Amino acid sequence: MKKGIVAVIGLGLIGGSLALALKRYTPHTVYGYDACEATSEQALQTKAIDGAATNIAEAVQAADVVIFCLPVSDITAKVAEAVPYLKTGAIISDVAGTKDNLLTAVPDLLPLNVNYVGGHPMTGSEKSGFSAASADLFIDRPYILTLQKETDSGAVETLKELVSAIGAMPMVIDGVVHDAIAAQISHVPHVTAAALVMMANCSKHADLNFALAAGGFRDMTRIASANPAMWTDICLTNKQEIINGLLDLQKIISQVVANLNQGDAENLIAFFSEAKKIRDDLFNSF
Amino acid sequence: MKKGIVAVIGLGLIGGSLALALKRYTPHTVYGYDACEATSEQALQTKAIDGAATNIAEAVQAADVVIFCLPVSDITAKVAEAVPYLKTGAIISDVAGTKDNLLTAVPDLLPLNVNYVGGHPMTGSEKSGFSAASADLFIDRPYILTLQKETDSGAVETLKELVSAIGAMPMVIDGVVHDAIAAQISHVPHVTAAALVMMANCSKHADLNFALAAGGFRDMTRIASANPAMWTDICLTNKQEIINGLLDLQKIISQVVANLNQGDAENLIAFFSEAKKIRDDLFNSF
Repeated sequence: MKKGIVAVIGLGLIGGSLALALKRYTPHTVYGYDACEATSEQALQTKAIDGAATNIAEAVQAADVVIFCLPVSDITAKVAEAVPYLKTGAIISDVAGTKDNLLTAVPDLLPLNVNYVGGHPMTGSEKSGFSAASADLFIDRPYILTLQKETDSGAVETLKELVSAIGAMPMVIDGVVHDAIAAQISHVPHVTAAALVMMANCSKHADLNFALAAGGFRDMTRIASANPAMWTDICLTNKQEIINGLLDLQKIISQVVANLNQGDAENLIAFFSEAKKIRDDLFNSF
Repeated sequence: MKKGIVAVIGLGLIGGSLALALKRYTPHTVYGYDACEATSEQALQTKAIDGAATNIAEAVQAADVVIFCLPVSDITAKVAEAVPYLKTGAIISDVAGTKDNLLTAVPDLLPLNVNYVGGHPMTGSEKSGFSAASADLFIDRPYILTLQKETDSGAVETLKELVSAIGAMPMVIDGVVHDAIAAQISHVPHVTAAALVMMANCSKHADLNFALAAGGFRDMTRIASANPAMWTDICLTNKQEIINGLLDLQKIISQVVANLNQGDAENLIAFFSEAKKIRDDLFNSF
């Protein structure tokens, strides 16, 4: 791999992990920028980055690849801020959980010789911040790349190489398809986890509920402990797909309620059996 | 602890674990019975039990405590089958996930000198069967005991002692309250996990959904891999509480859908923040 310069803008859980992974698994020089100076300092001291920029201009001016690891609603503004300082031929990417909105907005901001390739590593944690970052967060996880028709194939290859180098599996997927999938396997489950916590909390037995909750409830609600502002952003930039998923979920739940009301054992067992079969077939390593 | 005889009827995940735990952590003699002869044989060979009975009469006739570890809908019939053979002063218990239905049905079957104390260990696994059993399944987990007004206090103390000896934390809770709590922290989450799998599966991107699903989705749907017949039983013996919980959950989800439709960031962030706060406060060891 040819040695280059990568700038990571935003050193939270994903940005920090990306910096650590690039340092550990690639020969690249990594510059970092975070709006919080203490975070930059922590990243520098733990050798997650080679240099801490004090502003975006300084971070991006020498970079071959610039990866924005910010809340999705901040990305467009920060890309615009970076544009005057970008090198000819630079590649812009990000790690946001919604992609179609960025594919619509970001490329229009860029000069002709700069390419945008959207990115979404399918990994994470309910924890957030640089302190939770890990160089191995991406290993064996899919890392989705989203493109426009006009995206330069060289830029795509560079991103694929970078993503493979840190142990992830690059997959090019259409941005609209990505957002539909992300709604179903991540955004709707996230809303549901938070809704389950609220349901258990609004009961008159709330204290006992939480005192007695066993592994199933803890597993199911773990992602409800993630960053609320980030999730609000994600929901609002993928709202139609999330609404569709939530309405589908409500229809399925309503059918179960109808079966319960009718004491319909046959349809209940069919429901649980089908869900079990699907899950066992697809996650058969568990 | 005075040495006695405990009969475990049904040697699946919970019954098998109970037998293993009683053998490891108490001086009692443990007799086991399972409708599947190969399972009894396996339990005997792995020393989970001291003796394998070939029928319920044989299993219970010398027992001081008889614990029915069967699907909830089978318990009443099997207790009735055991009644003619029970010792004077015997204590009957079970490990079913719903309790009020058994408190209503079981004591009426018993002679005056036999007591029923309902039991529900708040533990488990998405796996089932004796092969998944473990002597340490109950350690540090709540183990709920449910009583009638008429239940003999000596019988309750004996059960508490047994439950404490295998490492669990006995808690006496009203049967109706138990069922409300179990609906909220176990049964409704279970239905929801299965519904999430079905939602992801009914999408035109189902294959990609499951190929890309990360830790959050796997955690949230893990319990959907549990035993469908057992869960159908549980649902039908606690249907009103489960319906109430599912309807509460749907109301909360409908509010999120309304907030999404209106692009209401303020209410969305309030929703995610409250869920996070509740969960972080209550499971602060995670």
